Amino acid sequence: MSDLVHFEDVRVGDVRRFGRYLVTREEIVEFAREFDPQPFHLDEAEARQSLYGGLIASGWHTAAMLIRMVCEHAIPGSATSGAAGFDDLRWIKPVRPGDVLSVETIVLDKADLPPRPELGTVRVQSRVLNQEGEAVMSLISLVLYRRRPPEPEGPARVA
Amino acid sequence: MSDLVHFEDVRVGDVRRFGRYLVTREEIVEFAREFDPQPFHLDEAEARQSLYGGLIASGWHTAAMLIRMVCEHAIPGSATSGAAGFDDLRWIKPVRPGDVLSVETIVLDKADLPPRPELGTVRVQSRVLNQEGEAVMSLISLVLYRRRPPEPEGPARVA
Repeated sequence: MSDLVHFEDVRVGDVRRFGRYLVTREEIVEFAREFDPQPFHLDEAEARQSLYGGLIASGWHTAAMLIRMVCEHAIPGSATSGAAGFDDLRWIKPVRPGDVLSVETIVLDKADLPPRPELGTVRVQSRVLNQEGEAVMSLISLVLYRRRPPEPEGPARVA
Repeated sequence: MSDLVHFEDVRVGDVRRFGRYLVTREEIVEFAREFDPQPFHLDEAEARQSLYGGLIASGWHTAAMLIRMVCEHAIPGSATSGAAGFDDLRWIKPVRPGDVLSVETIVLDKADLPPRPELGTVRVQSRVLNQEGEAVMSLISLVLYRRRPPEPEGPARVA
């Protein structure tokens, strides 16, 4: 028997808190240069003139930081096979240089995935928190969990 | 008057197609090492044993490629101030090395944003397509558009 948490083992309502991600100005600008070159992610002076009043991380960068913490802390020990997508992503507060982020997850519900009987879908709400405990981002992920393989057939056991 | 497309100028139903993003094995692995180190994003041999049958890009990497194409082709000329979040993101098909991605957007609807009268929200459905024209990812973005500044007051014009 595998020690991994499979679909059958996931409990609705389970809450987990994990991760610690220090957000640096260098990483904000580097990510923005590669993927999201909007002025309020690139340049402090231009960002000060923007809606955001100063340099902020790309929301997609915050999402990438979240998945990094998930990969480090939540996926090990779990029989997951990626995710089908997610819903209701909201960037709630800006993420700024010097912020320290962490994650809180809660299992919302579980469902069969009829076309793939070896898998099940688990809906997990994740919130990214800053060092003040304020949520900066939230989303609901549709995580694919593998089911436990059927027990091999053997001689009937006597109770 | 600014030439930028402001909230008032956005037309529901408008469709745009843009972008060309060549997906490389090196970039898939580099993004995965930094943000999403799951075996099927990192290593061809392990990926072959996975659900996905070969190396695939992190879904978050595909999202980052989308925002890159949006920054290059859709944001210039538009009076946008980022996005509040998005809904219904689905990773529909795997993205693999050698794929060439592009974007199709359609404006779904527009809404006021009462706490910020200088802004409005535009819901845009984006689909990322591969070189076969197949959708590999879709999502609905809640884009923040700025409204046109009020005309300066002047002498009443005679009709």
